[in-house]
Amino acid sequence: MNKKTMISMAVIRRLPKYQRYLGELLNNDITRISSKELSERIGFTASQIRQDLNCFGDFGQQGYGYNVRELYDEISKILGLTRTYTTVIIGAGNIGQAVANYSKFEKLGFELKGIFDKNPKLIGIKIRDIEVKDVDELSDFLERNKIDIGIICVPRTQAQVIADIFVKSGIKAIWNFAPTDLNVPEDVIVENVHLSESLLTLSYRLNEAKLFGEE
Amino acid sequence: MNKKTMISMAVIRRLPKYQRYLGELLNNDITRISSKELSERIGFTASQIRQDLNCFGDFGQQGYGYNVRELYDEISKILGLTRTYTTVIIGAGNIGQAVANYSKFEKLGFELKGIFDKNPKLIGIKIRDIEVKDVDELSDFLERNKIDIGIICVPRTQAQVIADIFVKSGIKAIWNFAPTDLNVPEDVIVENVHLSESLLTLSYRLNEAKLFGEE
Repeated sequence: MNKKTMISMAVIRRLPKYQRYLGELLNNDITRISSKELSERIGFTASQIRQDLNCFGDFGQQGYGYNVRELYDEISKILGLTRTYTTVIIGAGNIGQAVANYSKFEKLGFELKGIFDKNPKLIGIKIRDIEVKDVDELSDFLERNKIDIGIICVPRTQAQVIADIFVKSGIKAIWNFAPTDLNVPEDVIVENVHLSESLLTLSYRLNEAKLFGEE
Repeated sequence: MNKKTMISMAVIRRLPKYQRYLGELLNNDITRISSKELSERIGFTASQIRQDLNCFGDFGQQGYGYNVRELYDEISKILGLTRTYTTVIIGAGNIGQAVANYSKFEKLGFELKGIFDKNPKLIGIKIRDIEVKDVDELSDFLERNKIDIGIICVPRTQAQVIADIFVKSGIKAIWNFAPTDLNVPEDVIVENVHLSESLLTLSYRLNEAKLFGEE
């Protein structure tokens, strides 16, 4: 399989949704599902679903549907969920606490190993049994602990400083909630959650609906 | 211009990023920029930028670059930022508080009019001078106040109930942070922020890099 062309990011970004829906089916003891039924639940067209899932192998049988367990396991494998990842959160404000408290991440295999902040009011408090440490201790901590994913929940102006510490310590994946784009070497992966970009997409769509809705 | 084919969502989703970078240029009194310089800052290719911006009109002049102010104003207009939007947040937990405290949204024209929760410990506290109200008062509040955007920051299991209240009260745009897909009529716009989908995209990319990095 050609690496460059193997799977488009558009397909990849739909996989977590498949994984979530298939997980719900398993919880409800549903072992087989047709692309048509899956389509009705998930909201993609049946042909889109067949096309997406064909990228990964031959999971469907004509007239018989998909084996939910097999498909769930395969998608989990593709998403890298057959192993665990260690994480640290920098910034113990609202976003940092929300991420820390989101118990689903732990179930998916993301183990929170440390939370850091520079605010004396937050240093020392406990979030899910983890004591918030002084961000000045971050470099030392990263030397002593193997961390896979660094999560940035600090204000925009401090995000690059944290990213630099991550990069220097060998972290290869950054989940960035700060509303800025980080400069990192090519071998470091950054996944951004830019809330204002999402909100502005909403205002665009709302405005467009109003602009064109009354024609 | 044909409505259906006018501008692809892929282009739309890049517009907030253009808007953010152009705003920074204006703050630094930069009035002209070439697609090449813009490319170096924003990280899209120059040809991508020219192609994107051509969708909206003729802003560049060969050998002269883009007029930053004109381009900023036009993109802001397209994004619907020449008006204000009233919002309410349901769920005053970490995510709800993070959204409420994000001052940039107000600058962009999103006016927070109310915050609601069902937790007695949160009802009555103030977040940015807005007192958290009992969610039981939400329907009444929406009858008395014209709200453009409803923001859902409640747990997964309660999200649909809130969406139903929004729809019944005539809200046409929902910003959903709950990790579930909402059922709403076709004329209601939903923009999701699904954190776990973002995290799983990161784990996919990290895993892929490891899988193929050592060949």
